[in-house]
Amino acid sequence: MGRWQPESRSRLEQAALALYGERGFEETTVAEIAARAGLTERTFFRYFSDKREVLFGGAGMLQQVLVDAAAVAPATAGPIEVVGCVLDAIGVLFEERRDFGRQRQAIIAASADLRERELIKLATLAAAMADALRRRGVADPVAGLTGEVAVAIFKIAFERWVADDNTQELSLLMREGLAELRAVTSGD
Amino acid sequence: MGRWQPESRSRLEQAALALYGERGFEETTVAEIAARAGLTERTFFRYFSDKREVLFGGAGMLQQVLVDAAAVAPATAGPIEVVGCVLDAIGVLFEERRDFGRQRQAIIAASADLRERELIKLATLAAAMADALRRRGVADPVAGLTGEVAVAIFKIAFERWVADDNTQELSLLMREGLAELRAVTSGD
Repeated sequence: MGRWQPESRSRLEQAALALYGERGFEETTVAEIAARAGLTERTFFRYFSDKREVLFGGAGMLQQVLVDAAAVAPATAGPIEVVGCVLDAIGVLFEERRDFGRQRQAIIAASADLRERELIKLATLAAAMADALRRRGVADPVAGLTGEVAVAIFKIAFERWVADDNTQELSLLMREGLAELRAVTSGD
Repeated sequence: MGRWQPESRSRLEQAALALYGERGFEETTVAEIAARAGLTERTFFRYFSDKREVLFGGAGMLQQVLVDAAAVAPATAGPIEVVGCVLDAIGVLFEERRDFGRQRQAIIAASADLRERELIKLATLAAAMADALRRRGVADPVAGLTGEVAVAIFKIAFERWVADDNTQELSLLMREGLAELRAVTSGD
């Protein structure tokens, strides 16, 4: 998404996030989102199946980027090098999306339902990463473990990235997380 | 739990798991569980707040064991060594609980609601592990990452442990997972 998404979709997204932040996710209606964006409900439903999809509609693309990056990583790359390639690709996807990420994180933190949905999204990503590694010939339990680890690094780096005072790029924070993890697991 | 839980609690647990497996979790009532166990509903509610607690009532004890093991690990232990101590303590907790674990896993796999609840349980455990590490002076992002990693190892080892053909102890599978993870992260 970002600059290359249709302008009306972008306006709807901004209107939705502003309203979820002001009134709460549960209290906001699609009619209000459309009105705030100066568009019709019909236009809203052209881009989003419901108001939750404004927050989770990017999950499919995130998963696709992950799976593709794992597939095109060098044939000689071991599991952890594939994780590095995947995290770099995810970093590119989120470029210029920090404001969206910040608003979204605050909205999700305020709702138990949305927090659950976010956990499901992350579990689905970990499973997709494990499958991508299996397709590269990585056996279990390494494939499963590495899938979980990749998502853990993404999750922790994302939380740092959207923190108020952070100015570092997500890519850098993910690479740092990977390096920290390697340092921790090589220690006692 | 296991051998040292009250006999009526154990009978209720077995009756509940059998019924959830036969009819499905949603379709089973507390009255049916009590009848199958030859006990009253009142006795059921002495041990469990609702029928879901038969499946998730152990989460509090699991978290306590994790937090305690992290607190008493040697002062010189680094984060990953603390994870090892915690996994060992969890292994002891689950001794002789494989049959319960197997039945429970199948029931949870069959229900989207229960799978969500399980994800919340695991996320809560990861947060508790990260907090336990912070109390030992481990800084972020290492504390957060290591909390996620510890739970990933537990999750993957648990899935292997309850697989039909597995005869290895959970402790061993968790130690193996930790070793695999260390091998993966030290590679390319």
